[in-house]
Amino acid sequence: MNNRMIQFVIGKILLVEAALLLLPMLVALFYREQVIPFLIPAVLLTGLGLLLSLRTPEQTGLFARDGLAIVALAWIFMSLFGALPFYLSGSMHSYVDCIFETVSGFTTTGASILPEVESLGRAILFWRSFTHWVGGMGVLVFAIAILPMSDGHGMHLLRAEVPGPTVGKLVSRMSDTAKILYGIYLVMTLVEIVLLVLGGMSLFDACIHAFGTAGTGGFSDRNLSVGAYQNPYFDIVIGVFMILFGINFSLYYYLLVGRAREVFRSEELWTYLGIVGASVLAITVDIAPIYHSVGTSLRHAFFQVSSIITTTGYATVNFDTWPSFSKAILVALMFVGACAGSTGGGIKVSRVVILVKTSISDMRRMLHPNAVSTVRFEGKPICDKQIRGVHTFLTVYLIIFIGSILLLSLEGADLITTFTAVAACINNIGPGLGAVGPQGNFAAFSPLGKLLLSFDMLVGRLEIFPMVLLFAPSIWKIRPRIKFRQRPNL
Amino acid sequence: MNNRMIQFVIGKILLVEAALLLLPMLVALFYREQVIPFLIPAVLLTGLGLLLSLRTPEQTGLFARDGLAIVALAWIFMSLFGALPFYLSGSMHSYVDCIFETVSGFTTTGASILPEVESLGRAILFWRSFTHWVGGMGVLVFAIAILPMSDGHGMHLLRAEVPGPTVGKLVSRMSDTAKILYGIYLVMTLVEIVLLVLGGMSLFDACIHAFGTAGTGGFSDRNLSVGAYQNPYFDIVIGVFMILFGINFSLYYYLLVGRAREVFRSEELWTYLGIVGASVLAITVDIAPIYHSVGTSLRHAFFQVSSIITTTGYATVNFDTWPSFSKAILVALMFVGACAGSTGGGIKVSRVVILVKTSISDMRRMLHPNAVSTVRFEGKPICDKQIRGVHTFLTVYLIIFIGSILLLSLEGADLITTFTAVAACINNIGPGLGAVGPQGNFAAFSPLGKLLLSFDMLVGRLEIFPMVLLFAPSIWKIRPRIKFRQRPNL
Repeated sequence: MNNRMIQFVIGKILLVEAALLLLPMLVALFYREQVIPFLIPAVLLTGLGLLLSLRTPEQTGLFARDGLAIVALAWIFMSLFGALPFYLSGSMHSYVDCIFETVSGFTTTGASILPEVESLGRAILFWRSFTHWVGGMGVLVFAIAILPMSDGHGMHLLRAEVPGPTVGKLVSRMSDTAKILYGIYLVMTLVEIVLLVLGGMSLFDACIHAFGTAGTGGFSDRNLSVGAYQNPYFDIVIGVFMILFGINFSLYYYLLVGRAREVFRSEELWTYLGIVGASVLAITVDIAPIYHSVGTSLRHAFFQVSSIITTTGYATVNFDTWPSFSKAILVALMFVGACAGSTGGGIKVSRVVILVKTSISDMRRMLHPNAVSTVRFEGKPICDKQIRGVHTFLTVYLIIFIGSILLLSLEGADLITTFTAVAACINNIGPGLGAVGPQGNFAAFSPLGKLLLSFDMLVGRLEIFPMVLLFAPSIWKIRPRIKFRQRPNL
Repeated sequence: MNNRMIQFVIGKILLVEAALLLLPMLVALFYREQVIPFLIPAVLLTGLGLLLSLRTPEQTGLFARDGLAIVALAWIFMSLFGALPFYLSGSMHSYVDCIFETVSGFTTTGASILPEVESLGRAILFWRSFTHWVGGMGVLVFAIAILPMSDGHGMHLLRAEVPGPTVGKLVSRMSDTAKILYGIYLVMTLVEIVLLVLGGMSLFDACIHAFGTAGTGGFSDRNLSVGAYQNPYFDIVIGVFMILFGINFSLYYYLLVGRAREVFRSEELWTYLGIVGASVLAITVDIAPIYHSVGTSLRHAFFQVSSIITTTGYATVNFDTWPSFSKAILVALMFVGACAGSTGGGIKVSRVVILVKTSISDMRRMLHPNAVSTVRFEGKPICDKQIRGVHTFLTVYLIIFIGSILLLSLEGADLITTFTAVAACINNIGPGLGAVGPQGNFAAFSPLGKLLLSFDMLVGRLEIFPMVLLFAPSIWKIRPRIKFRQRPNL
């Protein structure tokens, strides 16, 4: 482990967070609200950040395990400091609640411990939703975009932070790739804000909901979420944008540079859209008797499916009252999740495709042991090592999932609430069913339960391994640093 | 596919089933009940069996895919004919219900559509429980034991029928291995019958409960299952025997031939006993406030854990009323299941151990990419092909599990009932929670729902692949038979 370098990068990340706090401060000044709750953490972050990053380390080499440790620690520290504005402003009384809410924000989960949000200050609401936007594309991607860092080191960080089984560079330089990703992200967010304002939403509300959509987070400034507006236009705009933010951002880059053919041949994209289409159709038929209109049923089905598969968690209706079949589809979609390289969570469509194709190929081999069969994904053959990686992901995911349910069941909530609370947190969705349904919240869990769910949210957002490996004893062992030396280029 | 040979073996299996029907016929004669409901299927089975197996096929070569097809078809035909006594005796009015009950019997699930069983005739109750005993060790294992068949062919059948990731021969000849397994099985069943009779149970009831325990099935002739006796002695005898029948039968053979060291070094055995011990302890503490006595809590916890992990499904209390933590543990145990090579169902302890060890090894490799690490199980290194097999098993298992829940949710039962109904059937347990809890039954599902659950029970008992591959188009393609010729030795 290159501890000096880990400290250095985390120091830089804390400085970035201090800078990000300037935005809610401006909002506070504009609405004449308290600035202090943001100023104190910003000062603390600046001080600690400078302390950690003042001395450039002699050795800047980073191994994969350093990347994992940096990502895990950075997200934990960001959440601990990001929780301070909630605590200092008195919006929540317990610091654990503040941590839960902040982790839920950064991980784009959108699970809340607040029974109602409309009494919160504007600046606090802004910060709460802005964490979604920051967490959606990832804070280390942001750091790579703006800090000078060598490609090799950036790659380890990117791989640990960007969702999906594989991460590729779009352009030769890593920092340019990060800039392109953030550029597309910013422009799409702005387009959504404009569309929402054109539909009659206030600029503030439009920002809040665009942040929630872009990060596929799900925090709203209305108690009834998007359902509060009772406006089909907003349902459709937000519904479509959730789907868009659930698509691999590389595809947008390919569209921009005229490689549309690659986009239309994307296996993951078509599977994703196919799952969305089939689910919307099935739910529309299932709930039609409730809403007495195919149009309304279609709109509610589309919005809820779009919200759940992208793991956003906005709701226009209380889907906990829907028939079992529709609820079962939504629960299944919670696990599928969005596309790799998007801001969405879950297992990811690409992993599901690889798992299904591998299983079919393996079963075919049982029937015809001598047949040669290669599993192909996105037109390319996948090697056994990649398949093993996806299998390991699935296994560890299930182990953490089942372990979390066992621990959380100690709280005594009913099994549906316990099961979907863990599912909603580990898949970064937000609402589940039962007591944590679209009109419920997570306040009833004990502080330990909330910390467990916060861990699950981080596990989900960082795709398991950075968080789990933080507990490996060997990652903290101090070894003689005889690794390859490299000139400091940071 | 060697269709002639498949027909021939299935013909022999049907003759075996005809012979097995003689036992309930004797019971019917003894209690002066109807013999006709057993006689008709016995005659039909004999006729069809002779027709199929009269002409010895010229080519007796069997490929792995032939073995899979034989096992799947044999179990389906056995269930269709085994259901006739229930139908002809008028015990159940719908043939689908009879199929469900018979599949539940042969697969040692123990799920019932009967709201009460105490009004059934003795011979029908005997046949219902005897299917557990036959299905527990497997009907093809029985066929291999009594029919002269070459080792190579028997191996394909054994591999498709005996639970667990690997199947080994105990002795050099396959038919001797099968005889040893059935011998141990028979002796253990007899010992349990004697112990139950010594405790004051009638011989008939003792047979019923010993069949249910030995096959880890769970059918009882009492509406309240083992709980009806209110006798701690029976709880302990049946509880201990369930644990014993959940152990790999090879270990008993090793004990018999004096290779006790291998038994005490068995990784799967110790993990299995460790899981049982930890679960009993945790549940005892959790339910102690309900029963006001540590002894009673311990006994109920032990019996229920033993019943669920071995996938038997007997109950002494209605565990659906227990706290969430205890219920969550029981649901988790439903998936773990018993040891490979036992009569129990579920994913199997050995697969769980391999999955966990592989995950830890793979994560270690993320931290130390150059470290050499081999996954070892039972003292031997496991190759990547075996690991891939376990991963494929888990993936297909999950796909069928989720698909079944989605389809069954169309019936409109609540999600806990739907989820645990599928879990209880695919893991061959019997009772779930909610409407299918220990004091409920499966009668409320539609005929299609019952057929789906019957499919799931067969999927669970035959460990997925024989049933799934039955749907592969290529298994039914007629190909020119240019495969290796072999002298008929059957």
